[in-house]
Amino acid sequence: MPTGLTGRQQFPHRHLLAISALMPWEISFLLDEAEHWVGVNRAHSRKHDDRLGGLTQINAFFENSTRTLLSFEIAGKRLGADVVNMHAAQSSVKKGETLIDTAMTLNAMRADVIVIRHGSSGAVRLIADKVSCPVLNAGDGWHEHPTQGLLDALTIRRRKGSIAGLVVAICGDVLHSRVARSNILCLGSLGAQVRVIAPPTLMPAAIEQMSVTPFTDMDAGLEGADVVMMLRLQNERMDGAFIPSPREYHMLYGLTPERLARAKPDALVMHPGPMNRGVEISSIVADHPERSAITEQVEMGVAVRMACLDVLTRAARGVEGWA
Amino acid sequence: MPTGLTGRQQFPHRHLLAISALMPWEISFLLDEAEHWVGVNRAHSRKHDDRLGGLTQINAFFENSTRTLLSFEIAGKRLGADVVNMHAAQSSVKKGETLIDTAMTLNAMRADVIVIRHGSSGAVRLIADKVSCPVLNAGDGWHEHPTQGLLDALTIRRRKGSIAGLVVAICGDVLHSRVARSNILCLGSLGAQVRVIAPPTLMPAAIEQMSVTPFTDMDAGLEGADVVMMLRLQNERMDGAFIPSPREYHMLYGLTPERLARAKPDALVMHPGPMNRGVEISSIVADHPERSAITEQVEMGVAVRMACLDVLTRAARGVEGWA
Amino acid sequence: MPTGLTGRQQFPHRHLLAISALMPWEISFLLDEAEHWVGVNRAHSRKHDDRLGGLTQINAFFENSTRTLLSFEIAGKRLGADVVNMHAAQSSVKKGETLIDTAMTLNAMRADVIVIRHGSSGAVRLIADKVSCPVLNAGDGWHEHPTQGLLDALTIRRRKGSIAGLVVAICGDVLHSRVARSNILCLGSLGAQVRVIAPPTLMPAAIEQMSVTPFTDMDAGLEGADVVMMLRLQNERMDGAFIPSPREYHMLYGLTPERLARAKPDALVMHPGPMNRGVEISSIVADHPERSAITEQVEMGVAVRMACLDVLTRAARGVEGWA
Repeated sequence: MPTGLTGRQQFPHRHLLAISALMPWEISFLLDEAEHWVGVNRAHSRKHDDRLGGLTQINAFFENSTRTLLSFEIAGKRLGADVVNMHAAQSSVKKGETLIDTAMTLNAMRADVIVIRHGSSGAVRLIADKVSCPVLNAGDGWHEHPTQGLLDALTIRRRKGSIAGLVVAICGDVLHSRVARSNILCLGSLGAQVRVIAPPTLMPAAIEQMSVTPFTDMDAGLEGADVVMMLRLQNERMDGAFIPSPREYHMLYGLTPERLARAKPDALVMHPGPMNRGVEISSIVADHPERSAITEQVEMGVAVRMACLDVLTRAARGVEGWA
Repeated sequence: MPTGLTGRQQFPHRHLLAISALMPWEISFLLDEAEHWVGVNRAHSRKHDDRLGGLTQINAFFENSTRTLLSFEIAGKRLGADVVNMHAAQSSVKKGETLIDTAMTLNAMRADVIVIRHGSSGAVRLIADKVSCPVLNAGDGWHEHPTQGLLDALTIRRRKGSIAGLVVAICGDVLHSRVARSNILCLGSLGAQVRVIAPPTLMPAAIEQMSVTPFTDMDAGLEGADVVMMLRLQNERMDGAFIPSPREYHMLYGLTPERLARAKPDALVMHPGPMNRGVEISSIVADHPERSAITEQVEMGVAVRMACLDVLTRAARGVEGWA
Repeated sequence: MPTGLTGRQQFPHRHLLAISALMPWEISFLLDEAEHWVGVNRAHSRKHDDRLGGLTQINAFFENSTRTLLSFEIAGKRLGADVVNMHAAQSSVKKGETLIDTAMTLNAMRADVIVIRHGSSGAVRLIADKVSCPVLNAGDGWHEHPTQGLLDALTIRRRKGSIAGLVVAICGDVLHSRVARSNILCLGSLGAQVRVIAPPTLMPAAIEQMSVTPFTDMDAGLEGADVVMMLRLQNERMDGAFIPSPREYHMLYGLTPERLARAKPDALVMHPGPMNRGVEISSIVADHPERSAITEQVEMGVAVRMACLDVLTRAARGVEGWA
């Protein structure tokens, strides 16, 4: 249920493309809305709500992602939308059609909301500029993955009460990670003190400009952290160009119980999944009954996506205010 | 809303397999029905109608087609059907099952309407003969693609008021095109004067028997045309056997602004998509704000498919008359 | 409509993992429930029932199977569930995620029922142990395919009145067949006298311990049978390691009219599909209007899956008793 935002009227954005475009109160607003859906999803088997009944949601995934697609599909269906998946990774795009033409096609079919994942940074904005309905970025290149940022913030807020003042260490392949980027922006915006930990080859240049403290030594970076957020090491980085080997990576940057001991005793462990157990995270840590929030992140993902789909379609539905 | 057909009672076909099987009034009837859905889709976010509620629609696509599948899926869902996609291109068919056995399987699952796309001409009819529910042809080999013919006719009728007497030039790989075939039949049946323009290697033998005027010179074929309908040049034709190169094809048969100037000043430009920009059509023409009807075609596609799904299932639903 | 079971209250299992876990009355109970859905599916176009409305059904298929997936998807949608397919064969599992992590993910999304197909025996149970909702085994390795066993039993019961005392010959690649295994257990449990017929290379060791009579000579095995159930010869077995050639297999173990004459004059012919016509079964037999029950099996498949989905979700829905 929304808290403390009664004065505000309306979410002022048509699309959800990036955390960087959101004010702190807008982030909090989306998290409050998501709380409502956490409650609904937990309380009932019959989770169905018909507020998006008759609306068409197209999930256009130009890059494969089983989990994120599943999460958006479940979110839309629970809200009553007619959800269709466009598996663009194996589609007309391959036939040489331009991205804009694909966007115009989805628009002409009178989609009411389009969820897009694309391998190129900025591709989602390009589409958003061309269509007449809300667009949700489900990850674009190395740019952003805003619903991941939101779901992680929601997970932390629920576990820790609030985010302001917390020390959050984001650790792994920061360079190629839109998850890291959206989290840095989201948690920073909500007042957390964000650190990033990465090998020198996977640390973005000039990362300090994002108001984070960089560490190449993991032990130092974890010291006193309230939250340890591990990133997935993509398979394609494991082959020598960026790191010597998965084993050596684990030794230097894997989250083990010993290493976690550097963080606060009640530090939260997070991972966006899918995990490489034994590479960036050890199983004992991943499965820790109190410390690990990894499956909670997945649960929050559905709730956050329900909230975003609901909020972004309110204008078209002629609805104001709260869930 | 249906116009001028009040005397007729019922669409007299069980299946929609080919434009060649339809009388002119039947085509007009389907276009009138589709008009209803254009209105519904434009008027509301809540486009949902429950007339196909509880009916099972199976989309069995033995040939990939992201757009057409999406269009049929959206159409069925907007009408309330339980829509399931059978991606037959990667299915038991590959395990050696015969087409008839697949058809019998879909039938035994008690589908209420089956939408089929298949790479072989006549395959859809073969299935239609074996099942006890209506079958919609979503494209079979080089034979027909009747809903494409209908959506193109609807687009033209809406833009030009009526079709009778119009000069329509269909241009490109006519030889391998079921789109061309369905359009020649559909527009000819409604009284248009159809021309086909193609390189000699891509012009069907004895095409005159379809009551069209063939041109191998594009400028001559476009002279005074009311509608210019470009065909997609399939990637597999670009490699030398049929045309020297995409670039040379563009020089001789690409629709450029200069070439379009041969047609009437208000000539409509159409393309079934996905487009090869710079090959069969130049971007300036494709994106022309008044002349291009390309995205409208996509919109009409959903409406036409809603109409066909509705009309063909009326008998099973015990419904007569109009939408 | 359920018959003769009025005394029983509730199906006492949370999951449906294997026929081996079911008591005879539980099998009969599920068949009775399925009868109800056969009636519904036959009586109406509007087959929709909303008893699973608002529930989320995830079909997680780690092994491709167009037919079985289609059957479960149709079953769930007809009951009103929000059905989502996870095509795990091309998913994060390939990214190195463990099966347990995938299970935890599906669970965290608050699925209300999960249908799983997996290439490894026991994998489905592994998942069932980790999630908080009912799990339906849609085939795991060489272990079991319980809904196939149930649909075959239902087909036989409807055709023959009852199963007790019937002689059923299961013929083909028994060694690698979960279909054979589930059928042996199911039909044996209901009182049939089960024979298995296989080449020595495809006959499991110690098969007698399953209370069946093994035959390597097909003519002998068919003698006086009431039901002949053919198994599919998987393509990967056709290459010499197990059988000399498809042609020789057909000569020795293919069901031809001559061979079928050894069975009872009214013997039923069954096959789980997809069929290799001319290999394990000849077309004359497969298409026999009175003897073949092959398409009926497909129909029963949807009904059995509707029954299982309904029955397993009753506890969560707070429902007792009969359909």
